[in-house]
Amino acid sequence: MTRVVDSIPTRIVLAPLAGGPSTPELAAAVSEAGGFGFLAAGYLGVDDLAGRLTATRRLTDRPFGVNLFVPGSPASPEAVARYRQVLAAEADRVGVELGPARRDDDGWAAKLDLLVAQPVPVVSFTFGCPEPAVLARLRAVGSETWVTVTTPDEADQAAAAGADALVVQGAEAGGHRGGFTDDPTGPEPIALLPLLQLVAARTTLPLVAAGGIATGRGIAAVLSAGASAAALGTAFLRCPEAGTAGVYRAALAGGAQGSSAALAGGAQGSSAALASGAQTALTRAFTGRLARGIVNRFLTEHSSHAPSGYPEIHHLTSPLRRYGREAGIPDLVNLWAGQAYPLGVERPAAELVADLHAETRDALLAVTAARPGASS
Amino acid sequence: MTRVVDSIPTRIVLAPLAGGPSTPELAAAVSEAGGFGFLAAGYLGVDDLAGRLTATRRLTDRPFGVNLFVPGSPASPEAVARYRQVLAAEADRVGVELGPARRDDDGWAAKLDLLVAQPVPVVSFTFGCPEPAVLARLRAVGSETWVTVTTPDEADQAAAAGADALVVQGAEAGGHRGGFTDDPTGPEPIALLPLLQLVAARTTLPLVAAGGIATGRGIAAVLSAGASAAALGTAFLRCPEAGTAGVYRAALAGGAQGSSAALAGGAQGSSAALASGAQTALTRAFTGRLARGIVNRFLTEHSSHAPSGYPEIHHLTSPLRRYGREAGIPDLVNLWAGQAYPLGVERPAAELVADLHAETRDALLAVTAARPGASS
Repeated sequence: MTRVVDSIPTRIVLAPLAGGPSTPELAAAVSEAGGFGFLAAGYLGVDDLAGRLTATRRLTDRPFGVNLFVPGSPASPEAVARYRQVLAAEADRVGVELGPARRDDDGWAAKLDLLVAQPVPVVSFTFGCPEPAVLARLRAVGSETWVTVTTPDEADQAAAAGADALVVQGAEAGGHRGGFTDDPTGPEPIALLPLLQLVAARTTLPLVAAGGIATGRGIAAVLSAGASAAALGTAFLRCPEAGTAGVYRAALAGGAQGSSAALAGGAQGSSAALASGAQTALTRAFTGRLARGIVNRFLTEHSSHAPSGYPEIHHLTSPLRRYGREAGIPDLVNLWAGQAYPLGVERPAAELVADLHAETRDALLAVTAARPGASS
Repeated sequence: MTRVVDSIPTRIVLAPLAGGPSTPELAAAVSEAGGFGFLAAGYLGVDDLAGRLTATRRLTDRPFGVNLFVPGSPASPEAVARYRQVLAAEADRVGVELGPARRDDDGWAAKLDLLVAQPVPVVSFTFGCPEPAVLARLRAVGSETWVTVTTPDEADQAAAAGADALVVQGAEAGGHRGGFTDDPTGPEPIALLPLLQLVAARTTLPLVAAGGIATGRGIAAVLSAGASAAALGTAFLRCPEAGTAGVYRAALAGGAQGSSAALAGGAQGSSAALASGAQTALTRAFTGRLARGIVNRFLTEHSSHAPSGYPEIHHLTSPLRRYGREAGIPDLVNLWAGQAYPLGVERPAAELVADLHAETRDALLAVTAARPGASS
């Protein structure tokens, strides 16, 4: 039986993009164009997820997937309280009240039940590896399970748990690092190309490569490294079908133009940082879990003291970030973006998938074409 | 006229590997096998370099290159003095005297004169972009000039200065980052795959991809991304032709085996760190310039306070590192390694080049072969 991961016509996967950008329209458009769309379940109530599943099914008959956040361990209340004190000045400055630093499991059990009742072709996981019984339960209803890994050890654990495929996420990826832990004293994040080689040396599971892929050449590269498909997230953020906030779109476009004009609403820090393009950094400042975003004032000022504590810190900063999005202040917003974000373009998802696919084929043709001086 | 960078039979380049591992035997063996060998000129006196040039020419008629360090700006004497105080305890513990934190230009002018008098097919540069006149002087004697870049801006500068090719070095690379500056407050290092895409979008110069490439799949990946060749350094460190110290070889082998047995001489820190394999980090602790090495005690304890100050700090720690190499104490040695180092093997360079080349061809054949479900 052909696995879903091996039968994506363009070998292009839409990364989930939880927290706003993910929409039924974007997932459906990618799947319709021969890619593989994902709905992000993260941060949604189960009823909202059910509604989005229905909406996506109305828009496409093609297969798509759903991505779930795996619950982790509780944060240190003291560390969260200390960070709340630091952020109080930020909140006061704009007259916003910080959120309750509450713990939740993102509706884990209810979302699993929904996906068992209304199966989708693929369920992928971020922030951990589910118990083997959970993977088996989904497999029993016909779903393929993909587990996100960021280290060779995590790849071993996911394989042992019975994952059908691994989403191999490199350090260059935008948004949250999707690995199993968030340890500030842990090893340095591994970039995609070495990680793909390390993981491929220890498992025969199909691999979906993620992180810093923005062009057909990038896709061709990871396929040549042995990946079954390439997952792109940042590249789709500027599509009209995405739910990306205006201030976030402007920041992404500013990087592309090497100009800070699009960020006129921002404070000094942003302009300088964005002028050079491609300036992103990993931070826990916004959510208490390591994620890569475009450098802005909030990231610069709070990365050094933000503790590990997800989702507590996520809830704590949520009102501030919402205010930033609504008031058009990029310096208060988590501008998640991978290291190749300046290569992003604003165009419909179907056109983007078609262009990327054509570029991929051109890149693969070019590399295998006869070359003067090359032995064969 | 075909450029050298476009006519490497296997498209495999030996990264320079200054500081011990570089030898005439290794450079010649790689060139003889259809790769492109490099002699590292860094740290050598000009007479030593001349001797190695002669030795390499005796060993091969195939083309090879020489890599030069470009002199940078002086370190802060106060920062160097503070770091010397911190390291005094390290030195006392093993009865070694720290070195003079002297400034030098690595014999820049004399080495350039030598390479003009005895030209080689390629001269590559690390730590900066030479003046256009320097590149022109080398071109006038028939040498191709390659400049190492780590950001899109550096690529623009090197192109403007007249470089013939760019060595594009990603964050995952082992050893020193070869970019133009070493600013602790600068942007996060960019990984190879996004950097290749970003640089290819702004120049048509041929690119040599470097960082985290250890397998034929890795080589196939960067060629598919548009690189003309792939530079591998760490992968060659365990070749018998390399001058890699024994304690360094053992550390590299320990990562491959996921075991700390090979490092019995080391202190606690190393064993724990190396047991997981692939654990490397960027540090200024050994040389005052950011470089990636296998995590050991010295790196862990001194990375947070080591200042930017190359080559002053290099000279300061040199006796301590020499003692570590000679006494077999890996915790005192700069164990430069890229993020894919656990995939390295111990075998003659010619066999390694032949195997990597065969793997590269297999990887490219696999990705372009017909695939069920794929549109064409």
